[in-house]
Amino acid sequence: MMVQVKGFRTSGAHGGLKAEGKLDVALIVSDQPCTAAGMFTTNKVKAAPVLHDQATLSVPGAGVRAVFANSGNANACTGVQGIDNARRTAEEVANTVGCNASEVLVLSTGVIGVQLPMDAIMQGITLSASHLSTDGWDDASRAIMTTDTRPKIASVTTDSGYAVAGIAKGAGMIAPNMATMLAVVVTDASVPADSLSSALQAAVEKSFNRIVVDGDMSTNDTVLLLANGASGVPVDAGEADFQRALDKVCTTLAQAIVRDGEGATKFVTIEVLGASSDAEARAVAQSIARSPLCKTAFYGGDPNWGRILCAAGYSGAQLVPERARLWLLNADGSTALQLVDAGQPCDYDEPAAIAVMQGTEWGFRLDVGLGNASTTVWTCDLSHEYVTVNGHYRT
Amino acid sequence: MMVQVKGFRTSGAHGGLKAEGKLDVALIVSDQPCTAAGMFTTNKVKAAPVLHDQATLSVPGAGVRAVFANSGNANACTGVQGIDNARRTAEEVANTVGCNASEVLVLSTGVIGVQLPMDAIMQGITLSASHLSTDGWDDASRAIMTTDTRPKIASVTTDSGYAVAGIAKGAGMIAPNMATMLAVVVTDASVPADSLSSALQAAVEKSFNRIVVDGDMSTNDTVLLLANGASGVPVDAGEADFQRALDKVCTTLAQAIVRDGEGATKFVTIEVLGASSDAEARAVAQSIARSPLCKTAFYGGDPNWGRILCAAGYSGAQLVPERARLWLLNADGSTALQLVDAGQPCDYDEPAAIAVMQGTEWGFRLDVGLGNASTTVWTCDLSHEYVTVNGHYRT
Repeated sequence: MMVQVKGFRTSGAHGGLKAEGKLDVALIVSDQPCTAAGMFTTNKVKAAPVLHDQATLSVPGAGVRAVFANSGNANACTGVQGIDNARRTAEEVANTVGCNASEVLVLSTGVIGVQLPMDAIMQGITLSASHLSTDGWDDASRAIMTTDTRPKIASVTTDSGYAVAGIAKGAGMIAPNMATMLAVVVTDASVPADSLSSALQAAVEKSFNRIVVDGDMSTNDTVLLLANGASGVPVDAGEADFQRALDKVCTTLAQAIVRDGEGATKFVTIEVLGASSDAEARAVAQSIARSPLCKTAFYGGDPNWGRILCAAGYSGAQLVPERARLWLLNADGSTALQLVDAGQPCDYDEPAAIAVMQGTEWGFRLDVGLGNASTTVWTCDLSHEYVTVNGHYRT
Repeated sequence: MMVQVKGFRTSGAHGGLKAEGKLDVALIVSDQPCTAAGMFTTNKVKAAPVLHDQATLSVPGAGVRAVFANSGNANACTGVQGIDNARRTAEEVANTVGCNASEVLVLSTGVIGVQLPMDAIMQGITLSASHLSTDGWDDASRAIMTTDTRPKIASVTTDSGYAVAGIAKGAGMIAPNMATMLAVVVTDASVPADSLSSALQAAVEKSFNRIVVDGDMSTNDTVLLLANGASGVPVDAGEADFQRALDKVCTTLAQAIVRDGEGATKFVTIEVLGASSDAEARAVAQSIARSPLCKTAFYGGDPNWGRILCAAGYSGAQLVPERARLWLLNADGSTALQLVDAGQPCDYDEPAAIAVMQGTEWGFRLDVGLGNASTTVWTCDLSHEYVTVNGHYRT
């Protein structure tokens, strides 16, 4: 159950982008203007709503009143008309909820290269605005789903008297630097825009940038953070409590995305330690998390440590095989058993290792033995179902 | 049918590394010492035979008389004992065929982290040496197969009176910079070692470094080139005829590896042109060839141009979506139809596009419209069968 975040009302509705009455638009409205921060895909091919929101948030002192999101259409590779449709969407939302168009952010996810069906968008705006409620988060989170199998919500209340809550979607095209994922996080704390921006960057680095489903990075990735101050509680720059609450919400949402990865049957934590720098630790962890051979071994429940060392070896990071040690981890992060010592297999209990990997959550810890830097990445397996989902997405 | 390359005898035999009498060792012997060149994996985790051969070939004036290869065991992550086993293998081959151990190169492919079964290796050396023949290439090519479904042989005769021929194996762990692939190419031309080395580098750049199956790069990748001069025809440094023959053999073998990619049902050519540099062209092409979303769309026969632009967009190379143009190509490389113009979809005939992709060979040409550099990469699709093969390789 979502905690209450004061001053926000939300809804989900069926505008007509998807078939059979499925929820396909979400609206989030704040009673008062919010300070806002956004992080966006680094893909050179950016969808129209990404370009629209980047422009909107680039205005100093920009206040945000509403976020409108649609699934079923990414409004990507749609040229000038796509940009125009994003602008028209924001204008219509502004008219309907009673604010300025410059106070509206838009999000889109779904098929690439098709113009937004504006009739459905307009109907979606009308319907979602008429359903706004303080209990609308569940509908909103469902309305942004694409190949997701379940909605993703996270929230935290703090002792200081404000709350942080968020929704996200994403299942495929998930790579570090965000992916075909959308997330909106809100708080009723009062946070200056620059503090909000640095807090969001720090949180994303520890959450959405640490997940890998398939290594593809989408055109639409966006994380938005809005603070409306309705709790009356001010948050100072760099306040640890706020960062902790924000980290918690973002990490929960990010992990939920991996758990719901397209076709995923396993949730796998990759810890890398002993690297000579953070960048090298990340390179090793992401190489393992992206390797199709590692991911199919995860799927098969095969403690195939050779593939893990191999993926570490081609990551581009420094690696001295004779120093590498590898452990299999239980779901709670504790050590199950050591697989590799000094680059060679230990005489480990293979059936015990397989038994751990029969579970749905476990991990690996790789100590490369070269320094003090470490990182953790969350990923999933590569299953038959992933191929089924993506081999027949459009046709 | 393999053409005759004078002065080489080859064989395949069952030493006992694999079950059921399957060929698992190959031997290639030259009647006279060869000049030799080798290219090896750039993975930081290098198998013992890779380290052994690199050391052997690093001696100036090294002459090679024999190459011994085994499948069923990669002799990787096997520490000092692995290095010792590679050396013992070379010594036994030398004793058996009558040359020095420093004239023997060794190759291994198969499971990682298990010590070579030296009894089987020794038996394999005895048996393969007793079967040497000028017609042994087919057996040798079969003996190095792992998950390959068919042997890979290529040969060219030249007007100058010498021949170039080779065998290769490889099906998974295939990425640029070579992969879990082994190739041995031989010629009866007389070629100085330094010419051989530069010719091999040029040929590998145009062939084995242009293929992607799954993006994983193995611990054992090796391409060897031997020239014994038995034809009596000298090849001068930089001779175009020799380079052309070598390129042809290497390209044929490389493409055969992709065609036989694990679970592959499609052979897909990715042409990128209009890039501002060779490196950028390669980055774009390899990003597309490695993308699980593109590869599953290839499998589904879905002309999902959005995923191709998306993969190009996150390749790290420069991309201005408004300049991008994309075509679907027929099996012969001719243009089937244009899918994207100025970053947006053309009004193309979707059933016609799907019809092309029902075939087993076709491609895409992406013009990024920024410069004059171009490249071509060959890849395959990501199928249910790939997941089956790799989800249950060991257990």
